[in-house]
Amino acid sequence: MVVATNSFPSSSVTIPPTNISPNAILPLERGDPIVFGEYWKKMSETCTVVIKGWELMSYLSDMNNVCWYMLPETKEAIKRLHHVVGNAVTEDRYIVVGNGATQLLQGAVFALTPSEASKPINVVVAAPYYSEYQDEVDILRSGLYQWAGDAALYEKNEPYIEVVTSPNNPDGTMRGPVVKSEAEGKLIHDLAYYWPHYTPITHQADHDIMIFTFSKCTGHAGSRIGWAIVKDIEVAKKMTRYVQMSSIGVSKESQTRVAKIMGVICDGYQNFESMESELFFEYSKRILKKRWEKLWEVIDESKVFSVAKYPKAFCNFTNESSESFPGFIWLKCEEGIEDCGSYLLEKLKIRARGGERFGVSPKYARISMIGTDDEFHEFLNRVSNAKKECD
Amino acid sequence: MVVATNSFPSSSVTIPPTNISPNAILPLERGDPIVFGEYWKKMSETCTVVIKGWELMSYLSDMNNVCWYMLPETKEAIKRLHHVVGNAVTEDRYIVVGNGATQLLQGAVFALTPSEASKPINVVVAAPYYSEYQDEVDILRSGLYQWAGDAALYEKNEPYIEVVTSPNNPDGTMRGPVVKSEAEGKLIHDLAYYWPHYTPITHQADHDIMIFTFSKCTGHAGSRIGWAIVKDIEVAKKMTRYVQMSSIGVSKESQTRVAKIMGVICDGYQNFESMESELFFEYSKRILKKRWEKLWEVIDESKVFSVAKYPKAFCNFTNESSESFPGFIWLKCEEGIEDCGSYLLEKLKIRARGGERFGVSPKYARISMIGTDDEFHEFLNRVSNAKKECD
Repeated sequence: MVVATNSFPSSSVTIPPTNISPNAILPLERGDPIVFGEYWKKMSETCTVVIKGWELMSYLSDMNNVCWYMLPETKEAIKRLHHVVGNAVTEDRYIVVGNGATQLLQGAVFALTPSEASKPINVVVAAPYYSEYQDEVDILRSGLYQWAGDAALYEKNEPYIEVVTSPNNPDGTMRGPVVKSEAEGKLIHDLAYYWPHYTPITHQADHDIMIFTFSKCTGHAGSRIGWAIVKDIEVAKKMTRYVQMSSIGVSKESQTRVAKIMGVICDGYQNFESMESELFFEYSKRILKKRWEKLWEVIDESKVFSVAKYPKAFCNFTNESSESFPGFIWLKCEEGIEDCGSYLLEKLKIRARGGERFGVSPKYARISMIGTDDEFHEFLNRVSNAKKECD
Repeated sequence: MVVATNSFPSSSVTIPPTNISPNAILPLERGDPIVFGEYWKKMSETCTVVIKGWELMSYLSDMNNVCWYMLPETKEAIKRLHHVVGNAVTEDRYIVVGNGATQLLQGAVFALTPSEASKPINVVVAAPYYSEYQDEVDILRSGLYQWAGDAALYEKNEPYIEVVTSPNNPDGTMRGPVVKSEAEGKLIHDLAYYWPHYTPITHQADHDIMIFTFSKCTGHAGSRIGWAIVKDIEVAKKMTRYVQMSSIGVSKESQTRVAKIMGVICDGYQNFESMESELFFEYSKRILKKRWEKLWEVIDESKVFSVAKYPKAFCNFTNESSESFPGFIWLKCEEGIEDCGSYLLEKLKIRARGGERFGVSPKYARISMIGTDDEFHEFLNRVSNAKKECD
């Protein structure tokens, strides 16, 4: 990665006016994917689901499937979408649906834990890692597994589970496993952001456990639907059991909606003639790309902040070479500012998530790139003004 | 409770013919509440929800509420339903929504666990207890809490959490706390079945933590919606945090549907003139009562099985005195049959859940009373035939 910072001041960037008061706190600490809402407004009628009073009442969906609470149409829609996008192998794999990737990550850790182990297995992730992993792993002080921090620093000669997040949250980089221990290790791939609007689809991923989520794919975070693609039937069974014990399955209303919306996306790509609107990944990539280009203009002029640049790669889905346009900005404060999160809040009234939450220096902070247009433009305004104060 | 068994043989009970083959296994081990489906078919249009493509996309619902992912209309519908039925106090209480009562039970145990404790707190429930509690508590071998079995046998001088299930699953009895230890104890009330179709509403429950579920109230198990009514804001906050860490909230599609369906039920009771159909609790009580009356006829003639009878009580909701009509039959095999579950499966091809799963003798087994009409009638047929074999 090349770090772009302290470029020569160019002419000021044009940023549209916003309806946000300059004194208001700008809440950019969460990754609420509001940005895609406009697309779904245009597609509103096509994607409407209608659920009658007597429908979807049973706990059960398909007792012949390992994941017995999963609606068959949900499974088919997930497989179809991966087939259309080409980002993951689903043939001869088990699909396990969960209440978001969050529940499935915990289910996967549970499933990989040897039940006969005398001490908890170590769970590691390379820093900077998603800020919630540690709490998710440690919240119940499980005797089966425990948080063991940065995978790059793992040197114990004990079995471990490494979570590989790629593209990474918070920093958007593509990653592979990093543990160098000789001990027995198992992998969980969190591929929540491996979709063509965020990053070039360079290969069809084919790992033992791959976790995806509706929230980051289409922006429907309120539906709380995630899914795992799993090679080993015993792992799929244990993950299903975890979801059963923690919530007896997953909302069927949400499953129905996932099936509908994924179906509409796929119809667009498979039956071009029937589509009048821009296709989903084209639209969402265009929006994110526009935001990132604006951001680069502002960051290139900034003496306060820097952001690492992403390498170009050929995307098999869009058939073009492209940079990544991640869902978050991984901002670094330059010399003299030790705590980027505090600086953002105190000086610019921007609420970000500080680097320490991600296992790294507080000189970093994560900013959502997928909020409303107004929030994004107000963010640019304030960062732009910070530059001026330092001139 | 009076135990009714071995009455004088009366004339055979009339049981409608079914479409189930006499050789088919009858799956009555689960409590899938299919029985209420017919009502919702009649009410289908009134209860339809329509969700457009762009709706319900955010993780967030109401950041001013402790339970920030709960839709305001879901909260209002829950409070309104309790107000109409009069089964629980909600004024000045916090509502926490979860992915079913299952997730909330675990959230409540987590919330009541002292974070500074050096050893796990004991979780107890009086036997016979719901078959899944033990696994739910023990699945992750938490260092915060642990399963400690039958509350009636608890004699340790250590802090404990007692779950009080009332009406009880599996046996339908009304219960209160039973632990006699002098140690500090906290209570969780699981009131999933405290609704007027199952049992007389004798009082407005007002406990520290009361858990309910949409599944058993209206029969919409596929929606995976439960809620807790909580007195202490700190407990409500910790329960919300638990749901956040385990699934970042609860499906909004399901929350919307809960609000709609509860609203229709309440409209029925509050605006009589607008309703053409029978009201929900009247319908569902009538159906369950009819089933129980048929069951009593068969059981009264049986030399093989007995079922405890329920005392009558005045129901403040229906304004009449009534027995209970629980969602499960808690069947006891008579002398000579030591394992009721195995007897049912081997002799009658009925899959039940055996007493040992509920912490008691295998002479007992739990049978669902809320499946389809055909399943219920086929059950009666087979039990009736078992009687004849013994004559």
